[in-house]
Amino acid sequence: MRLSPRHPRYQSLVVRARLADAARTGLVVPEGLIAFGRAEAFDYLLGERTTPSAVDAIRAAARWLRAARHPVLSVNGNVAALAASQVARLQRSLPGLGVEVNLFHRTPLRVKLVLRALERAGVENVLGVRASGRITGLPSDRARVDRAGILVADVCVVPLEDGDRTRALRSLGKRVISIDLNPLSRTSREADLPIVDELTRSLRRLAVEVQRVPTGQVRRGRFARFDRKRALREAQATIARRLRQVARAR
Amino acid sequence: MRLSPRHPRYQSLVVRARLADAARTGLVVPEGLIAFGRAEAFDYLLGERTTPSAVDAIRAAARWLRAARHPVLSVNGNVAALAASQVARLQRSLPGLGVEVNLFHRTPLRVKLVLRALERAGVENVLGVRASGRITGLPSDRARVDRAGILVADVCVVPLEDGDRTRALRSLGKRVISIDLNPLSRTSREADLPIVDELTRSLRRLAVEVQRVPTGQVRRGRFARFDRKRALREAQATIARRLRQVARAR
Repeated sequence: MRLSPRHPRYQSLVVRARLADAARTGLVVPEGLIAFGRAEAFDYLLGERTTPSAVDAIRAAARWLRAARHPVLSVNGNVAALAASQVARLQRSLPGLGVEVNLFHRTPLRVKLVLRALERAGVENVLGVRASGRITGLPSDRARVDRAGILVADVCVVPLEDGDRTRALRSLGKRVISIDLNPLSRTSREADLPIVDELTRSLRRLAVEVQRVPTGQVRRGRFARFDRKRALREAQATIARRLRQVARAR
Repeated sequence: MRLSPRHPRYQSLVVRARLADAARTGLVVPEGLIAFGRAEAFDYLLGERTTPSAVDAIRAAARWLRAARHPVLSVNGNVAALAASQVARLQRSLPGLGVEVNLFHRTPLRVKLVLRALERAGVENVLGVRASGRITGLPSDRARVDRAGILVADVCVVPLEDGDRTRALRSLGKRVISIDLNPLSRTSREADLPIVDELTRSLRRLAVEVQRVPTGQVRRGRFARFDRKRALREAQATIARRLRQVARAR
């Protein structure tokens, strides 16, 4: 069936179709589609826009990334399918950013598909392809990391949810910036700096904000405090407000 | 990876894995997995239990089904993968209930897979396998219906979302009972009787309630009024309450 641009949910149907196609090639796994659906629901509840409190979180994340000695962005199948070009743009804005393939369901084929999607979009020096390192405390393939990447990173950006991993990274002393639309998820609750926003919007914004940080204010290894609880509370309040609005509009 | 029963989300991971398996056979389509994810998010927000207001809706639905001259339950890939045995049980409780295969993404293979899942669970006289009828106003394969089923039904149960279909069925004068966890979805807002609850829980409960309706109170073709707006408002209020609770608990 062809999608009609006049359908009330056209834009979201287009993204959905793109992800479904990525599932047919194997880039995205079934569990990834389910996770995407969960995210869609929360994005809808948040009004499908970057909230003011998410903008604050993105600005704080930009400062952390600039202050990091070794920042790494973790990429899974969904991130590669949805946001490869935004990842490339962020890397151009912050040339020191490591981009690492890190998969919950890891197979050589999927590593190759993620790598190809990233390289086609212009990402350089993709890490994690061989993944000779290992982090402790994780039962999944997520534990397999790059010795020049996540293993030695001081700041990790983990887009899309995986609560176990966020906890494992923090227990290794790394600062975790999550990007997850669910403000109640374990990821959002475990992260040092939770960005509650849709992936492509927040990466695009992050690329802009990273360049706006005044160089004079950047001190390597010094990270400004971030009020994570307030960020989550505000996301939850936005959802509650929107529920009331939609209920009234009928 | 094996799932650990000690994982905080074990039950939901088991259901998720079952659906992912069904996607590998082709019973469930990628879009079905995404829809399942959306539902998961709303179930989580509703507290993963049947709310008092959903119980009211299920009881009203039970009375409508008993009063119907020709009640039909529509089954797609997700329903067959998740709830075939609950469908069979409802049919045993209400022997006049037609069960019809109705697919958004219809192929002969998928029809066969749905049919097999239903028959294995004990559903009898499955309708919609040939689907020689057609309802107007629907651009998708959903339009293809059974002349002895949805085409002539007076009450249709449509589990899982499809806003366009709900509207098309209503415009043909049919009463639509939806089962959809999203109280803001077009399905929930278009249905005559929206049940905002998880599929297996609500079907199980419906099978019980159908038998509890006093026969003396049943009059064919007479349907008690149902306050649909109130049902949706209450579901929205439950979500807002739960958001506040979770926010406080941290």
